[in-house]
Amino acid sequence: MPYAAPASEFRFLLDHVVNFDQVTGTDTFGDATPDMRDAILTEAAKLCDEVLAPLQRNGDEHPARLENGIVRTSPGFAEGFKAIADGGWIGMSADPVYGGMGLPFTLTTAVNDMMSGACLSLQLNPLMCQGQIEALEHHASDAIKDLYLPKLISGQWCGTMNLTEPQAGSDVGALRSKATPNGDGSYAITGQKIYISWADNDFTENVCHLVLARLPDGVEGTKGISLFMVPKIIPNEDGTLGERNSLRVVSLEHKMGLHGSPTAVMEYDGARGWLVGPEHGGMAAMFTMMNNARVGVGTQGIGTAEAAYQHALAYAMERKQGRAGGSGTIVEHADVRRMLATMKAEVFAARSIAISNAIAIDMSTATGDAAWKARAALLTPISKAFGTDVGVETAATGIQVHGGMGFIEETGAAQFARDVRVTTIYEGTNGIQAMDLVARKMMDNGEAAFALMDEIEAAAEAAKEKCPDLAEPVWHACETLREATEWLVAQELTDRFAGAVPYLRAFARVLGGYYHLLAALHGDDSRERLATVYIKRMLPEYTTLLAQVREGASDLMAISTDDLVA
Amino acid sequence: MPYAAPASEFRFLLDHVVNFDQVTGTDTFGDATPDMRDAILTEAAKLCDEVLAPLQRNGDEHPARLENGIVRTSPGFAEGFKAIADGGWIGMSADPVYGGMGLPFTLTTAVNDMMSGACLSLQLNPLMCQGQIEALEHHASDAIKDLYLPKLISGQWCGTMNLTEPQAGSDVGALRSKATPNGDGSYAITGQKIYISWADNDFTENVCHLVLARLPDGVEGTKGISLFMVPKIIPNEDGTLGERNSLRVVSLEHKMGLHGSPTAVMEYDGARGWLVGPEHGGMAAMFTMMNNARVGVGTQGIGTAEAAYQHALAYAMERKQGRAGGSGTIVEHADVRRMLATMKAEVFAARSIAISNAIAIDMSTATGDAAWKARAALLTPISKAFGTDVGVETAATGIQVHGGMGFIEETGAAQFARDVRVTTIYEGTNGIQAMDLVARKMMDNGEAAFALMDEIEAAAEAAKEKCPDLAEPVWHACETLREATEWLVAQELTDRFAGAVPYLRAFARVLGGYYHLLAALHGDDSRERLATVYIKRMLPEYTTLLAQVREGASDLMAISTDDLVA
Repeated sequence: MPYAAPASEFRFLLDHVVNFDQVTGTDTFGDATPDMRDAILTEAAKLCDEVLAPLQRNGDEHPARLENGIVRTSPGFAEGFKAIADGGWIGMSADPVYGGMGLPFTLTTAVNDMMSGACLSLQLNPLMCQGQIEALEHHASDAIKDLYLPKLISGQWCGTMNLTEPQAGSDVGALRSKATPNGDGSYAITGQKIYISWADNDFTENVCHLVLARLPDGVEGTKGISLFMVPKIIPNEDGTLGERNSLRVVSLEHKMGLHGSPTAVMEYDGARGWLVGPEHGGMAAMFTMMNNARVGVGTQGIGTAEAAYQHALAYAMERKQGRAGGSGTIVEHADVRRMLATMKAEVFAARSIAISNAIAIDMSTATGDAAWKARAALLTPISKAFGTDVGVETAATGIQVHGGMGFIEETGAAQFARDVRVTTIYEGTNGIQAMDLVARKMMDNGEAAFALMDEIEAAAEAAKEKCPDLAEPVWHACETLREATEWLVAQELTDRFAGAVPYLRAFARVLGGYYHLLAALHGDDSRERLATVYIKRMLPEYTTLLAQVREGASDLMAISTDDLVA
Repeated sequence: MPYAAPASEFRFLLDHVVNFDQVTGTDTFGDATPDMRDAILTEAAKLCDEVLAPLQRNGDEHPARLENGIVRTSPGFAEGFKAIADGGWIGMSADPVYGGMGLPFTLTTAVNDMMSGACLSLQLNPLMCQGQIEALEHHASDAIKDLYLPKLISGQWCGTMNLTEPQAGSDVGALRSKATPNGDGSYAITGQKIYISWADNDFTENVCHLVLARLPDGVEGTKGISLFMVPKIIPNEDGTLGERNSLRVVSLEHKMGLHGSPTAVMEYDGARGWLVGPEHGGMAAMFTMMNNARVGVGTQGIGTAEAAYQHALAYAMERKQGRAGGSGTIVEHADVRRMLATMKAEVFAARSIAISNAIAIDMSTATGDAAWKARAALLTPISKAFGTDVGVETAATGIQVHGGMGFIEETGAAQFARDVRVTTIYEGTNGIQAMDLVARKMMDNGEAAFALMDEIEAAAEAAKEKCPDLAEPVWHACETLREATEWLVAQELTDRFAGAVPYLRAFARVLGGYYHLLAALHGDDSRERLATVYIKRMLPEYTTLLAQVREGASDLMAISTDDLVA
């Protein structure tokens, strides 16, 4: 598997597209100097290329399995995880007080992207740990922080999230898991959870589960849910390991892909847990964590797209066929060139959006500014859904570039498509992301969206003289998006929801055009050529998408279930 | 797996959308009365529902495997194949002289669609047999016809196509397999072939391979290739089985899907073969067969899309979640309704195109009319590429409707996506279909395309009074397609090729709009509601697609391989 982690692409993005300097200009992130940043990217890329990428196929060919209640992981994954932990990559953005590096989330996002491309199924483990670390930093008591954070940050222990239950699915409020006070400050947690990623492993000495459950006096729905830390092995106060907790992996799922990542059904049978955050405040705590985890999942899509692109390009530049000119390889065929250019342009667009999202998160953290916070919240569902859609679509195109070889598993092209498929589903399906965008994230009547559009239009205006062919379509697309947004925020929820998915994609198309325009303005001719492909061929999709948005829900809801069954 | 073969949908299509009466009005197909047609559809649907659909998961869970040189097929496949053969379904359209039913290809297409939805991996076997039967009927000597056709039509033997070689891929002209005259009318065939679907099995007593190879005096390229019948076991003149031929299955591929269908590397080591068609005329013979096989593969995509749709709908109507009104199931959510309506509208569009294509083939067969022949040739790449794209996209949406369950293999949703994935690749990748459309099928300067557009616009004109909201967008889309086609036929090949894929899809979008309009005009309100969704939401995609077409190749070819690698 050829894979070279795109460190130089991130350097370009940070310097010339998303203005990383504004982050390092804050007091909070002043230590992330250009030298530090370069060292981080270089070292992470080295780890990806040399240690993680060689494990990618192992996960698929030798899936994690459950043996007598113990999860056995894929060959090499233990060593891969140790290398990630030893490099300090799990706690890159974690609090230095507990052993973290305190670096901007932007750099964590870049590193997560590169690691996803190298070995998605293993990378999911540190991604879950990062989510847990963040949740504990924000919501846990000092006692829990002191006990758990150092071990999670060092990778001695790892962490999971336990939200989903069979009957509840995306409707978390319907959960039935119960928590009963033990009278000693701990709680007895009982219930079954499904789809628990990396629920267990054979390389960390403990696994820490964050579990949503309802206290006896918890009301129905999301407002009666609390969050608990439920470790596999109960630590003593000094951090040494005590007794085994009453929880177990019931089974592992047989999945379409991501075989290296064990996905479990978990059973908690009066397991001891400790409250994280206030009673009945579990959803809020979970959401803090989930927002950044959503950016992380978007990044998984982008990283996989990058890897699928590199893989397809390598094949196309080697495969001789037909009477193509130049090298005689299929890369000379116009249709193959179209596929490859599309893949590359799409990866750039999705990656720019995710990195801008991370910048907004860092600026919000550093400044506390409500506008930055709103920007981060607005971009999160777009980063997640568009990044993972790009992952799925780019991996599919990668198979197509391979022709017949794409369908043969040993080529590796199919694995990208199978692995990345879950990313449009987990951490909230992309439909749920889109509904979040048009409902919750538009509770400000579109203020955050319009502020971003103002920026885009100003940049396009400023570029009209230098790059009219690129700037004008971007300006026009943004203005059309603005009009559609004005329409959207005036609609009932059902009408918004009916158009949510196309709206999110149209927004992403405009953002992609914006970042490609910036790249063309501040990069070399190669950037301009790629921006031209994006802006002329891919950006125009917004017209069809916004036409769909404007249809509202009535035609869809007019279709009865009888119509659907007929 | 819930699956109900859509026999009534075909009745509607044949009666109200594609005018099947014109086929049965010919002398050739006069026997296909409405009663006969209904009986065919009813019986085929019964076979699909009761015998084939229960085998679908077996193929995936218990893949065909190679044991000591013998291919062992999935449990139940032998019985399934026997039921298909005994029902006479293999030779539905074959010559009655050899035991076929002589029915229109349109009905074969309908039955193939239903069987694909029931069990794609098994259905591929009779599909290959049908291709071989057709090739022999058109090109083989009477001796070969008499010996092979009755056994192929009855399903006692089955047939394969051997085109691809490792170094040649889609460039068939680069093949290296050799044929040397034995002096007794037979030839010694030597070479290696790859991607041979259903190359062997354990349920027919013989397997007949049609193999492309080069005679000693064959020139380089496609003009020096001949076609040979190379049976696994050499039949005696009376049809009894003689000695084993010098050919073997080297290995079976480990594929992303379609595990029930053994895909082999074949080695021919001086195997005895007999010429089919003239010396050096192998490509022409192969193309006769491949054209209808391409419609057949398009139909595989559509059948799988139908099955994936039914599967997702059943899940959505059962899965209770959130605070949806009505049934309380997720089918009440606007975004789920959007996905399901899109799936259903898309299946109708693709199916109408394939069935119209089959009608044109039948009319060409029955009348010998050059315009029908040109119509059939024009529609073939569209049926193949759009049908299989719809297969891939609909199966992907089906996974999304299932949420987390879609990624778990036992649900079955993922199998549709994995199985159908190959259909956009085999029988000529969809890129090659698109290039065929804009080059070979436009060698008439677009005459056949414009004739079809005349029909569409006339129908839209006629419908403007009754259905202005649907007719006008269809007319306008068709006129835009016409203008783009006029532009296209004036371009160099590289420019045509760069826009080939979006052009084909735009053409399919317009055709889909046309057939949905006809359905709305001649069907009940339910048809009109579905047509509205298609015409308002999906048809408008043509604008973006045709904008891409008009970009030509220059921006793509300006992107250097250095740009791509950077």
